[in-house]
Amino acid sequence: MLTKNKMFFIIKKDLSSLENLLHETVTSPVDLITDIGNHLISSGGKRIRPALYLLATKSNPNLDKDYVMPLAMALEMIHTASLVHDDVLDNAATRRGSATANAKWGNNIAVLTGDYLFAKAFAAIAKNDYGTRISERLATIVCDLSEGEILQNHFGYTIPDSIDIYYERIAKKTANFIATSCEIGAIVAKLSAKEVDALREYGYCIGMAFQIVDDILDLTSDSKKIGKPAGNDILQGVITLPVIHAYKHGENSEELKNIIENRQMSLEELNRAINIVKNSNSIDFARQTVTEFLNRAKNILPDSLPQSVRTSFIEIADFIGSRDY
Amino acid sequence: MLTKNKMFFIIKKDLSSLENLLHETVTSPVDLITDIGNHLISSGGKRIRPALYLLATKSNPNLDKDYVMPLAMALEMIHTASLVHDDVLDNAATRRGSATANAKWGNNIAVLTGDYLFAKAFAAIAKNDYGTRISERLATIVCDLSEGEILQNHFGYTIPDSIDIYYERIAKKTANFIATSCEIGAIVAKLSAKEVDALREYGYCIGMAFQIVDDILDLTSDSKKIGKPAGNDILQGVITLPVIHAYKHGENSEELKNIIENRQMSLEELNRAINIVKNSNSIDFARQTVTEFLNRAKNILPDSLPQSVRTSFIEIADFIGSRDY
Repeated sequence: MLTKNKMFFIIKKDLSSLENLLHETVTSPVDLITDIGNHLISSGGKRIRPALYLLATKSNPNLDKDYVMPLAMALEMIHTASLVHDDVLDNAATRRGSATANAKWGNNIAVLTGDYLFAKAFAAIAKNDYGTRISERLATIVCDLSEGEILQNHFGYTIPDSIDIYYERIAKKTANFIATSCEIGAIVAKLSAKEVDALREYGYCIGMAFQIVDDILDLTSDSKKIGKPAGNDILQGVITLPVIHAYKHGENSEELKNIIENRQMSLEELNRAINIVKNSNSIDFARQTVTEFLNRAKNILPDSLPQSVRTSFIEIADFIGSRDY
Repeated sequence: MLTKNKMFFIIKKDLSSLENLLHETVTSPVDLITDIGNHLISSGGKRIRPALYLLATKSNPNLDKDYVMPLAMALEMIHTASLVHDDVLDNAATRRGSATANAKWGNNIAVLTGDYLFAKAFAAIAKNDYGTRISERLATIVCDLSEGEILQNHFGYTIPDSIDIYYERIAKKTANFIATSCEIGAIVAKLSAKEVDALREYGYCIGMAFQIVDDILDLTSDSKKIGKPAGNDILQGVITLPVIHAYKHGENSEELKNIIENRQMSLEELNRAINIVKNSNSIDFARQTVTEFLNRAKNILPDSLPQSVRTSFIEIADFIGSRDY
């Protein structure tokens, strides 16, 4: 996982307590729920959201661990719950090399387990009084995730009229969640309003960059590296930045559109679509957009942050830019 | 709906504002979500949870409406969200005579809409500071609902060893939610700790009674009255109080068990199972249990409540006992 990396060195201990806390949280009087919860948590995940949150809290050395940790847990639990539901929607059999909850226990139990994990996140944070802003932000994450997924689901296989619709969707699905993780860490650390806003913006920008890198890798990488075949997004009807750009500015636009909008596209057509995108300058455009988001992220980091925290945040931004697995 | 009844007279105005608030809450920048939300809310529902909550708040005449109403909305929204997910799990085509979300928009959109409605409930209440106890209770409702449903789903078509397992399941699925509705109304009304506990216990008891009445009606009523064929619970593998009692204390126990545990039972076998239960004294036993719960509910109501509130609560308990539709 990402968190083994040196940029997370200053929160290494917290990340290790987080694992225990996650297992504790899914312990239910209903054995089946405990089993599923432990399976989901042990199947890993990068813990990137709690890591960013925890890093932000390190701006203040005088925080009580019992106050800090439940929010780290809640962030990862909300993420896990949303993945459990996503896997039901996608009918996915595996995630990160392990069987999905729906594959192992069926769709019904998976939907209910997702609900349970969402609720556990909110129940756990209710025990401390984090104030209305943090509670509201956490609930809004779940609203955004479901809105983003509904947009993607309902408007799949359709190239949007405007690139803004794409940005709105990935903000709801990815960037707002990462923005909130950084923001609430800053609030917990009692940073100034300006610093809180800056860390939210930092999170938003690296979140957008992260998603666009994913979009690019889906086209340029292969199953050995990312665990799914190239063009999987197109196959699933998820329209990504390079595709939208190629349609708007590249050659063979109509041919590309016809393939993209065909839910029964053949493998040959899929490869043709990938080539149309690759032969345009759309991958370069997407890479350029990533660089812009990452520069914006790095530039907005307040100088007032402790040096070790600031350096870690910069390293994370650089890491996202260099990701190629 | 129940709430047209005179026992809800003192909260008539609040129940009418609630309808507007519910429609406002489901308004989303994503039109599709607004459409689904409005469909779900307009399809009705008895609003029994917010009604009980609002009734409890009437113990204090000096409450600010803007503080009181969001919790009424959250209770109904959590209930609606859970029904949307239940309908996906049951593959239900209609509820209360209207098309279900899954029938109208597909399972994927329905799962996501349920998530969205859960989150909206928590986002809306985050705007006011209701304190940790109320937040924790609301989140625990969702934990209980999913645990109860998982128990029912996973241990369906199996007569439990002990009647306590049945009581635990219906507490999680029904009674705890109604208990919490009364309890948080009492907290909002700033009643004493003893009164808050008493109203929670009242809610728990009428919730248990309500569910057992449902169990009885499923066996004794017909599709004209309750909108589903008699024995629907048995058919769905949901084991109810009269069935457990008949198995433990009636005749033809083994025959009953064999039918109940057979997922492919014929209509003839189903009718035989219903008759075995009816020919035992198990329906009477269940009715007796309902009476005991309702007496406990009425006896625990504090004398210190305003007369109009106390009378309404007693009328509700009596109404549950007399329900036969």
